[in-house]
Amino acid sequence: MAKDMTLLWGSGSPPCWRVMIALEEKQLQGYNQKLLSFEKAEHKSKEVLDINPRGQLPAFKHGDNVLNESYAACMYLESRFRSQGPQLIPEGQLEQALMYQRMFEVLNFSDKLSNVIYYNYRVPEGERHDSAIKRNKENLAAEIKLWEGYFQKAEVGSYLAGKAFSLADVIVFPVIAYAFRFGLSTARYPKLGAYYNMVKDRPSVKATWPPHWLENPQGGDTLKEF
Amino acid sequence: MAKDMTLLWGSGSPPCWRVMIALEEKQLQGYNQKLLSFEKAEHKSKEVLDINPRGQLPAFKHGDNVLNESYAACMYLESRFRSQGPQLIPEGQLEQALMYQRMFEVLNFSDKLSNVIYYNYRVPEGERHDSAIKRNKENLAAEIKLWEGYFQKAEVGSYLAGKAFSLADVIVFPVIAYAFRFGLSTARYPKLGAYYNMVKDRPSVKATWPPHWLENPQGGDTLKEF
Repeated sequence: MAKDMTLLWGSGSPPCWRVMIALEEKQLQGYNQKLLSFEKAEHKSKEVLDINPRGQLPAFKHGDNVLNESYAACMYLESRFRSQGPQLIPEGQLEQALMYQRMFEVLNFSDKLSNVIYYNYRVPEGERHDSAIKRNKENLAAEIKLWEGYFQKAEVGSYLAGKAFSLADVIVFPVIAYAFRFGLSTARYPKLGAYYNMVKDRPSVKATWPPHWLENPQGGDTLKEF
Repeated sequence: MAKDMTLLWGSGSPPCWRVMIALEEKQLQGYNQKLLSFEKAEHKSKEVLDINPRGQLPAFKHGDNVLNESYAACMYLESRFRSQGPQLIPEGQLEQALMYQRMFEVLNFSDKLSNVIYYNYRVPEGERHDSAIKRNKENLAAEIKLWEGYFQKAEVGSYLAGKAFSLADVIVFPVIAYAFRFGLSTARYPKLGAYYNMVKDRPSVKATWPPHWLENPQGGDTLKEF
């Protein structure tokens, strides 16, 4: 039981989801947690700001150690609880290299995805441009093709860094799930789709599936045209 | 001698600089390297695209392992060469937590810095807005204050994660150096300035100082007003 841990989180946020998957994988259930609403701007509440001065979720503490960045929290949890649950950093140097490369290059994917999905949220009305929307979409389309290509070259049924589920999957899967939630077609991206369908049934992922996605299984269609 | 490593890099790029600092720290001199010009768009050359399909620098290979993301390369190098040169991941759990938090939260700093310094480069002429420029500056100013505050709370002469130089410094220092290069005032940010002045004399940092900064010690003044 992880009673000395506190997680403030938002439903559907890939960074929050990563931390929750890592906690499940490391058998750290029973932590203190509170679901906050982005819509009600609860991520800007004093409760969050006390842990995360930028007013972002997740806000995560283990004892006095504050780990608000999802990458920081995941790496820390794997380091502290290496022998608990599956080892999330592979031993092999080839797999390890691939894990690090994929888990960090996905920052490109998530940035480009947010630029499309949250354009109106991020850009004030008077600053919006069709040319920017078009460019953002082109950038995202190229990025998605890159990832589909990675899976084409990989063995069937393999995870991002090889035969074992690793930190790369903890970090990347929520981004891919997000793309499908917003209408990406598994028919047009069959390899990404196969990976998505394999990982979504993993116990740690099922146990942490965004509650508002469960309540409302119909997501957006922003990426339908991709 | 690191003859099985190849680094394609650009002068002054914080991601490239990080990899070079890590290579120095890990005593991996003698790698194959080539300085490319962003101005001449050499980062979009076939030579780069063969290693890094996004056409970004650094492009880095160790044998067949490709590690183009600066975080990936640094973590990989520390993992592969742990006992060579200083250990860059501290053993203590408190220091380790702080290291992970700082090295990942600096992504906020570098994003906000780029949004100000490279606004005209990133945003096509017809899409520029004074309101966006103002907002970007406000976001950066708040971010810089946050980091000055971190150093105010730390012990004098300490590194980002405590008494020892760590991956947090490898990752964060180039961003801070960049801010000073673009006019940030050490008088207004004395703690950041003290950290900058301490780390800039470290052998690994001196050995990899951006060559065009050496040639032209006078940087920009974009951040003079901050």
